[in-house]
Amino acid sequence: MSSAKESFVILFQCQDRPGIVAGVSELVFRLGGNIVDADQHTTDPSQGNFFMRTEFNIDRKRWNKERLSREFDLLAAEFRAECRIFDSRDKLRMGILVSRPDHCLLELLYLWKSGELNATIPFVVSNYEGHRSLVESYGLPFYFIRSSKDLRLEEDILRIAVKESDFLVLARYMLVLSPQFLTSYNKDIINIHHGFLPSFKGADPYRQAFDEGVKVIGATAHFVNELLDGGPIISQQVEHVTHRDDPYTLLRKGKNLEKRALAEAVSDYTEYRVIRCGNKTVVF
Amino acid sequence: MSSAKESFVILFQCQDRPGIVAGVSELVFRLGGNIVDADQHTTDPSQGNFFMRTEFNIDRKRWNKERLSREFDLLAAEFRAECRIFDSRDKLRMGILVSRPDHCLLELLYLWKSGELNATIPFVVSNYEGHRSLVESYGLPFYFIRSSKDLRLEEDILRIAVKESDFLVLARYMLVLSPQFLTSYNKDIINIHHGFLPSFKGADPYRQAFDEGVKVIGATAHFVNELLDGGPIISQQVEHVTHRDDPYTLLRKGKNLEKRALAEAVSDYTEYRVIRCGNKTVVF
Amino acid sequence: MSSAKESFVILFQCQDRPGIVAGVSELVFRLGGNIVDADQHTTDPSQGNFFMRTEFNIDRKRWNKERLSREFDLLAAEFRAECRIFDSRDKLRMGILVSRPDHCLLELLYLWKSGELNATIPFVVSNYEGHRSLVESYGLPFYFIRSSKDLRLEEDILRIAVKESDFLVLARYMLVLSPQFLTSYNKDIINIHHGFLPSFKGADPYRQAFDEGVKVIGATAHFVNELLDGGPIISQQVEHVTHRDDPYTLLRKGKNLEKRALAEAVSDYTEYRVIRCGNKTVVF
Amino acid sequence: MSSAKESFVILFQCQDRPGIVAGVSELVFRLGGNIVDADQHTTDPSQGNFFMRTEFNIDRKRWNKERLSREFDLLAAEFRAECRIFDSRDKLRMGILVSRPDHCLLELLYLWKSGELNATIPFVVSNYEGHRSLVESYGLPFYFIRSSKDLRLEEDILRIAVKESDFLVLARYMLVLSPQFLTSYNKDIINIHHGFLPSFKGADPYRQAFDEGVKVIGATAHFVNELLDGGPIISQQVEHVTHRDDPYTLLRKGKNLEKRALAEAVSDYTEYRVIRCGNKTVVF
Repeated sequence: MSSAKESFVILFQCQDRPGIVAGVSELVFRLGGNIVDADQHTTDPSQGNFFMRTEFNIDRKRWNKERLSREFDLLAAEFRAECRIFDSRDKLRMGILVSRPDHCLLELLYLWKSGELNATIPFVVSNYEGHRSLVESYGLPFYFIRSSKDLRLEEDILRIAVKESDFLVLARYMLVLSPQFLTSYNKDIINIHHGFLPSFKGADPYRQAFDEGVKVIGATAHFVNELLDGGPIISQQVEHVTHRDDPYTLLRKGKNLEKRALAEAVSDYTEYRVIRCGNKTVVF
Repeated sequence: MSSAKESFVILFQCQDRPGIVAGVSELVFRLGGNIVDADQHTTDPSQGNFFMRTEFNIDRKRWNKERLSREFDLLAAEFRAECRIFDSRDKLRMGILVSRPDHCLLELLYLWKSGELNATIPFVVSNYEGHRSLVESYGLPFYFIRSSKDLRLEEDILRIAVKESDFLVLARYMLVLSPQFLTSYNKDIINIHHGFLPSFKGADPYRQAFDEGVKVIGATAHFVNELLDGGPIISQQVEHVTHRDDPYTLLRKGKNLEKRALAEAVSDYTEYRVIRCGNKTVVF
Repeated sequence: MSSAKESFVILFQCQDRPGIVAGVSELVFRLGGNIVDADQHTTDPSQGNFFMRTEFNIDRKRWNKERLSREFDLLAAEFRAECRIFDSRDKLRMGILVSRPDHCLLELLYLWKSGELNATIPFVVSNYEGHRSLVESYGLPFYFIRSSKDLRLEEDILRIAVKESDFLVLARYMLVLSPQFLTSYNKDIINIHHGFLPSFKGADPYRQAFDEGVKVIGATAHFVNELLDGGPIISQQVEHVTHRDDPYTLLRKGKNLEKRALAEAVSDYTEYRVIRCGNKTVVF
Repeated sequence: MSSAKESFVILFQCQDRPGIVAGVSELVFRLGGNIVDADQHTTDPSQGNFFMRTEFNIDRKRWNKERLSREFDLLAAEFRAECRIFDSRDKLRMGILVSRPDHCLLELLYLWKSGELNATIPFVVSNYEGHRSLVESYGLPFYFIRSSKDLRLEEDILRIAVKESDFLVLARYMLVLSPQFLTSYNKDIINIHHGFLPSFKGADPYRQAFDEGVKVIGATAHFVNELLDGGPIISQQVEHVTHRDDPYTLLRKGKNLEKRALAEAVSDYTEYRVIRCGNKTVVF
């Protein structure tokens, strides 16, 4: 992504049938746009789900997101498709929740500050007060939440999150979000799991990996759903290890994997490249 | 690629301008086809070269390659584009040239025999007579060429190659092809270089890598042009090494890298995924 | 490993205490040997298991394995250690069991024939008669076993295996070995599991990986024990995949991972680099 | 490395001959120490250079670095070896020189602050004044140097560097150090080169990589010597790229490679695992 992106992105998703690519690209052409990137995917014939991402430039004096939406909604109705349109100029608002481990937080702050992420950070929530000065030194609001039992505070967070964020990132957040939170928030939440799912669900995956004597460790960024560590996987990073690695060095190597997997997932997500598809994802 | 592929593939290449994707996909739709895979790429605006690969299924009772060509040639003329159309049922004829090292030859024979390659092998040429029984045990013609100085024999090879092959693979072929051969053959030739180009051109790259003390080695599959080891790169494979690796273990590791890089390049090439673009390649 | 290795290898394993390295290296020196490679590992202090691999050259006119054993057994007794000594000239006899998939079998045959493996192949057993001509073309004995229910034949295999092999490799062997076989054979058995353990135990791991929507797949070479796919892991190989990969391409990529993981495990094992340590391995 | 390391490390380097391992390990044992890690390497017989790293614990009430040095110096004399001994409690003082790109600086600051690096940071020198507030927020001295032509300032830096640092890291430092600086400083300097050496020496390696159409990019951490980008390589990191990557995304990916290669090199160096050997390195 260049920092000065001017394009629009359309995500189109429906039952597969002939003519969809033609329909979308013909419409872009008729409106005067020029397609700069296009990708599509059809799941296996038995399911036949069709996904398409089309990125195009168009005269902004004549067109904006709302006017484009009206045009594409008509086409979508024809194919009984779900169609979403995004303006690359609109940065997604990414709320961050984080516990004490700071490596993923720092990675996100760095990517945001250096302009590599198509996102803003409206707030950082943590149950570790020690992050306050760092976060505030970036000029960002910081909220302290004592515990997940602190339901009144969770409600406060929820109110802010619903209002101020387009999606949430759990950047190593150890508190469990209540089912009510998930239901009420009702937007995407991305979690970084410090293990190679589906292998090591639950707590202390590096200890589990050490005890199993694996020769490769991994980290997994995935959407949160009601299942613990069970939502659709967005990205995974892996690294070889040996018998010399103890839980301490596994943890050190794991931190790098977590940063990379989460950065990749968030980067793709904020460029509208990630589409859920049942319990899986399509990442264009 | 599933072994029972029935699709047609169009490669389209021209100066970028609005309407190309729409034009191609609309034509596929009008002919009654269904796009199953589509990818495109535009080089940076200063150059503005546009490349597209579209794969589609269509009623074979009504359409074959020739009839489709006529339709798409009209469209191509409109965009001043170069358009090539391929039938996935037509396997490419891959002539193999190989010297004594046999690991790349065996990999290609294996992929061919197990049906993983969209290609046939019309012949194997070698300056090592020892490969004859192996090659003939696969039921394939084997030609022995004593040396590159053996111009009359090179002419024989050339005649066979021109007539019986769609492209050539130098699967660790140590003899230098004469400029006349390259000019007269005039089809694609893929070479596997046992080094991480552009680092270690020329002879004995593992020795060069050892002497430089690098911590990563690689192998490169590339198109052959008039420059020694200088043609467009198709695929590269790399692996970490340490001070413990001597030229012997570097060579062993390198053999695996060579097999993997060449297999990937040939696999992509025979599925019509590789397009030359100046001194580079687009690999869809 | 160079093909002309002349060294001896000592594997030493005991409770950690000061003086072991000194004891072994001093003895090698006193006997007139020169250490060419040495590695050691101590598990975490709570367990304190010590492992050492020492490779040395020594005058073969004065020393052979038996004479060296006598010297080192005395030292081992002093440290209450388990000590094993190997002559690099003695190739290990590797019996192969294989079902229909042939990629791992071919890899082992290739490595053996090209002299890259410190092993001989006394026999190949398969429940797929189609491998006979290939195996016999290498001049190796081939035994056909119809099914795992064929107990009398399993007994025949067992008798041959016990007598003619130092270890067995299950190079994609789909029949389950009976508990009696495991007990009676009583030597090491290495299996290649076509999945990234401990994630996808059991049948059709690539289908499991596809259904889970993972972004990385793997293969695992491990020792066989009484647990299905549960023995100590020796080596693992991994590769990134995307939503475009269907079970067919996952299988193709997986075959390469299996070959590489198994080749690495067997190569290390036959150079006496692999030591079991509870449910894990130390790989020097 | 655990943060609470208490061990001593000996680096021993000489012409290969029998008895060295025995000599060192026997001495450690006699002094009452317990070897916790040992590694050795001999270059090929024609050169016969021997390197050994031995890490051991010993009663600190009886032994310190000076007393141990006296004991090992006697042994070293016997083998005409170069022997260096290090106390893991003594953190190396790492001076940092950095230009405007901040990713490597941030990585080093993070590793230092989280206690993952066996080093202190006595100062940061930069020709970019904008780093001052960041560096000083960590409580570290910051020196601004306008340009490499600013010889008087270079002399000031040199004076500080000689006095306050054990080694220097060029964490993306674009100014060229004068030959006088290198000569006068006379300690190790580690540079991160943003390219896969020896391929892309000199300026703008990502542009070079883009123009060559490579399918893999890399970054290289190496010792600085009088040759531009020509010193012994310590570590390299690589990543696959495609035709879709433009110089902007190559740069983004490259930044991650640089961070990882430099962090690995500095981490190994400060644990006394890196030994120069002519134009190469041994990394234990």
